[in-house]
Amino acid sequence: MGDGVLVDGVLAPGATIGILGGGQLGRMLATAAAELGFRCHVFSPDGESPAFDVAAARTISSYESQQALAAFAGSVDVVTYEFENVPAETAEFLSGQAMVLPGVGALAASQDRLTEKELMRSLGLEVAPFAAIDSLDDLVAALERVGRPAILKTRRFGYDGKGQVKIGPGDDPAAALAAINHHPAVLEGFVTFTREVSAIVVRGRRGETACYDITENVHRNHILATSTVPAAIQPETAEEAKGVGMRIAEALDYVGVLAVEMFLVEEGGRERLIVNEIAPRVHNSGHWTQDGALASQFENHIRAVAGWPLASTARHSDAVMTNLIGAEADDWHALAAEPGARLHLYGKAESRPGRKMGHVNRITPKRG
Amino acid sequence: MGDGVLVDGVLAPGATIGILGGGQLGRMLATAAAELGFRCHVFSPDGESPAFDVAAARTISSYESQQALAAFAGSVDVVTYEFENVPAETAEFLSGQAMVLPGVGALAASQDRLTEKELMRSLGLEVAPFAAIDSLDDLVAALERVGRPAILKTRRFGYDGKGQVKIGPGDDPAAALAAINHHPAVLEGFVTFTREVSAIVVRGRRGETACYDITENVHRNHILATSTVPAAIQPETAEEAKGVGMRIAEALDYVGVLAVEMFLVEEGGRERLIVNEIAPRVHNSGHWTQDGALASQFENHIRAVAGWPLASTARHSDAVMTNLIGAEADDWHALAAEPGARLHLYGKAESRPGRKMGHVNRITPKRG
Repeated sequence: MGDGVLVDGVLAPGATIGILGGGQLGRMLATAAAELGFRCHVFSPDGESPAFDVAAARTISSYESQQALAAFAGSVDVVTYEFENVPAETAEFLSGQAMVLPGVGALAASQDRLTEKELMRSLGLEVAPFAAIDSLDDLVAALERVGRPAILKTRRFGYDGKGQVKIGPGDDPAAALAAINHHPAVLEGFVTFTREVSAIVVRGRRGETACYDITENVHRNHILATSTVPAAIQPETAEEAKGVGMRIAEALDYVGVLAVEMFLVEEGGRERLIVNEIAPRVHNSGHWTQDGALASQFENHIRAVAGWPLASTARHSDAVMTNLIGAEADDWHALAAEPGARLHLYGKAESRPGRKMGHVNRITPKRG
Repeated sequence: MGDGVLVDGVLAPGATIGILGGGQLGRMLATAAAELGFRCHVFSPDGESPAFDVAAARTISSYESQQALAAFAGSVDVVTYEFENVPAETAEFLSGQAMVLPGVGALAASQDRLTEKELMRSLGLEVAPFAAIDSLDDLVAALERVGRPAILKTRRFGYDGKGQVKIGPGDDPAAALAAINHHPAVLEGFVTFTREVSAIVVRGRRGETACYDITENVHRNHILATSTVPAAIQPETAEEAKGVGMRIAEALDYVGVLAVEMFLVEEGGRERLIVNEIAPRVHNSGHWTQDGALASQFENHIRAVAGWPLASTARHSDAVMTNLIGAEADDWHALAAEPGARLHLYGKAESRPGRKMGHVNRITPKRG
């Protein structure tokens, strides 16, 4: 056992994993990596990054500083990231100097809603009707085809409902374009779904793929509120959803944890899946794995990027994950006293409205 | 939610927990603390301390530097420790400047085998026959009374079999005294036990006490090799062992996790417990709790010293914890590939013989 890299790029314990981004996902990745004997170097522009508190090394720098990126790349054995909005130039620069996983191609595909939807369609997966929007003319024509209500979303850099606007029957298309600052966009037809579900897939460096049990998600104000596992869907639908996730991971030649969010549509008792979006990273809807499975999504992501065998994704308990948004985390004392609840707090100093401060996993014996 | 201390000394998320000692126990305490939103400041004389890699702040200093200790005490909201051999002067100095938990009294009681055994006896608990040894005359007289074989142990600062020597029928008492450098000692009668078990107790700041399921331990070369839960003992004996642990914690007005190691003696189908020793800290025989219980011993220790409600000690799975000693950790790749096994590595650079490098928890559905 020693420092650094073994043959075939497999990282031995003692190696250093570089993490771009210092939020709660980076923090949970870092503690999972430490459990496997790795050191972590966290790179973040924010000096107050929650992940810094559990990292062996820290770089505070903008993602544009090539000097800082080069020093970072030189100090680590692999680079991974906790968010999909890593600037393309940053990812490309780093991948010239270090192993970057998941790869730059997967990152690029997920950064552009249009590319992503075209990929899904090319895989034969159902997505909501969509059209590329570069002008008001495009939008007017697309609304004719897709119908109303529809949702106009920027192609790049949206999350938690940012960068999107709903266009209802009476709404002015020009105002919608202005609301997203005339960024290149995609218009999506409205899907009347009964449930939102997600697949948390992990794919290793040798192409082995596994998927955690499908999670059912409830959003509030465009932010994930709860994830429940098992999802109340038919077993065949759950298997299909896992297959969708794994197919996408394979198509992207993906390494690491990938989240695939899907809508469930019910028609005459038949369940159908429509892929909503993918996230090339550990995902909020996979936080239940920390307490409901032997190995969490964070451990499996680290194993994948380190070239290790994947850990089992088997679930040992039922779980409901509830996000603690803003002031909800002020109830930490009551949550800490609740039997069967496991509290996770992110160490953020300030609880701004809408900010994810922590989550709680409520665990019950496995029934489903 | 803010930094620092709430009323009644309850620590809010964002508060800083000081940990004396930077080994694997400190490391696992630090990651457990981070999950609850705390920051950790680790104090260790060793610049290569595994716990530094997951700590928000680090002090590298001897335990004798009052200047470093004062700065440390001033930067944290509570001080705890990962090892029982904290010098008494260090603990006393710190407790004048900060809240130190578990308290100095419990630490002192566990640092002296004679005090410890007298305490057990005063509680009506059975211990091996023993005698205080300060001279060769004491030893010769004690051997007459206790019989041979017996074990001569230094009163202070022994662990993993260090500072103890067995005296068999033909052995020279003077040589035994020389082997422990004529330190003040205790002679212990030899106990013919069938099993070794331990109770991992946690006691909170308001006196609430809980105990994990009793663990059965196997030592090799005086170092813990495996811990298995549930222990193959009668249910009443397990309940009695839990009661023993909780009584000791109460007698010490203890706060935090306390380990009580016991011998199980079988006579005519009846099981009897003999207290061997206590450790005022998280303990190797409680590592299974990381993967076999909803909340680990590390989380419960942090909750206790922070003044939080304790988490459930309920076990959801059966578990066998196996230590990885020295070169055994070189098998990390095979262990990582084993289904149902959860690998924990401590990030130690050098795998010296006898050094604890990691452990693996093998988890199976709960039957016992």
